[in-house]
Amino acid sequence: MNALDNISVVLVGTLYTGNVGSACRAMANMGIRNLRLAAPNLQNGWDEGERMAVHATDVMNARKEFATMEEAVADCVAVVGTTAREGLYRQHVRAPRDCAADILSIAETGPVALVFGREDKGLLNEEIAQCTHLIRIPVDEGYTSINLAQAVLVTCYELFTASGRYLSPREKAPPAPQAQKMQLVKNWANMLVEIGFMKPEQSDHFMQGFHRVFSRGVVTKDDAALMLGVARQAVWAAKGGRREV
Amino acid sequence: MNALDNISVVLVGTLYTGNVGSACRAMANMGIRNLRLAAPNLQNGWDEGERMAVHATDVMNARKEFATMEEAVADCVAVVGTTAREGLYRQHVRAPRDCAADILSIAETGPVALVFGREDKGLLNEEIAQCTHLIRIPVDEGYTSINLAQAVLVTCYELFTASGRYLSPREKAPPAPQAQKMQLVKNWANMLVEIGFMKPEQSDHFMQGFHRVFSRGVVTKDDAALMLGVARQAVWAAKGGRREV
Repeated sequence: MNALDNISVVLVGTLYTGNVGSACRAMANMGIRNLRLAAPNLQNGWDEGERMAVHATDVMNARKEFATMEEAVADCVAVVGTTAREGLYRQHVRAPRDCAADILSIAETGPVALVFGREDKGLLNEEIAQCTHLIRIPVDEGYTSINLAQAVLVTCYELFTASGRYLSPREKAPPAPQAQKMQLVKNWANMLVEIGFMKPEQSDHFMQGFHRVFSRGVVTKDDAALMLGVARQAVWAAKGGRREV
Repeated sequence: MNALDNISVVLVGTLYTGNVGSACRAMANMGIRNLRLAAPNLQNGWDEGERMAVHATDVMNARKEFATMEEAVADCVAVVGTTAREGLYRQHVRAPRDCAADILSIAETGPVALVFGREDKGLLNEEIAQCTHLIRIPVDEGYTSINLAQAVLVTCYELFTASGRYLSPREKAPPAPQAQKMQLVKNWANMLVEIGFMKPEQSDHFMQGFHRVFSRGVVTKDDAALMLGVARQAVWAAKGGRREV
């Protein structure tokens, strides 16, 4: 049982199918695939919704519809509302990142609803009052009104990343050990004398600069091998070698 | 100087103005307001872009256009590309959260570009090769294709939250101290005897249950005061008090 499978997105009173479609795509991107519409108030046809869902039409077509939010969340063991506003009933609001682990942990015990209000008015106070948890998405003071599907994305993204289902990409090449890095400095010092870039007595001074650049840039064994190859080849060329054609 | 002011979103070869508009809104939500279009390949008019930008049309109208990505990022001290794919030139790709602090720290020293490719093909290899940093947005294996504006949102969101400009909401009421919590258990024990819910000798048993509920639910001084009020009123009512009408 994956906790994300126990999470539903509940859209309350949504006006535009395009936002439903975009929300479905965002949900699918983040591994959350259960959609419920509560008291939908759709002003346009589903063609726009299908266009925005792209390849997440399966999520959209499997949606469940309910007459009210109360019915839509009746089976849920946690009801997480989203609100952009402060004030009445909203004292315990948190940032999604700060409660993602808690919500996932509850989702291991039963169904959890993530509830998003109308495009124009959000959730009404009577709907906020049904929520066991409240979240507010971090936004800049300069423009606080976030698109519905964008709000769905950020919320699902925080749960998805907290779920551990996704592993951050890591450098595949093994890191260069210190001995290889010191060999690199030594071989470059030799090469830089050979090509006439510096005199042997200037080595201490110049090699600090190269060591600085290498320390930042030469991270993996592959990086070090590449830069060692340059030193080898430059020495060869400086001693009269010719490139094979 | 805010590091976010030094960050530009660079959209390369974008096809649809709606995505440009949605990206502008997402940028404005996250406090990033500089938009550059490189080699735009727009297939529709700006009315759709304006509709999606909503109140972020100022960001859209202040956009700068360039013939190529190379020109669009020429003044930047870091060029952060986004890629959904693995492979050639992409060994050092990281998750946006893992490098947000590094990118902000570079943005304190000069202009930084966040580069997003075409809706259908992303960034070409020759464009990836111009990037100093590469990021990949975490997505579920089941549906990896993320909308352009949604990719802009997640990337800007990570930088915005890392910038510290946004403070997570916190409970405003002060936390209840232990003495108040113990007073609550004591007053409830007394009340529960008075109203005939339990006998005094059952107190140890029942109060463990109430203490468990209170420990989870009674967090602030306000919460404790509320529940203490219930005990006081129930005792008053049990002793024959009448509610004033």
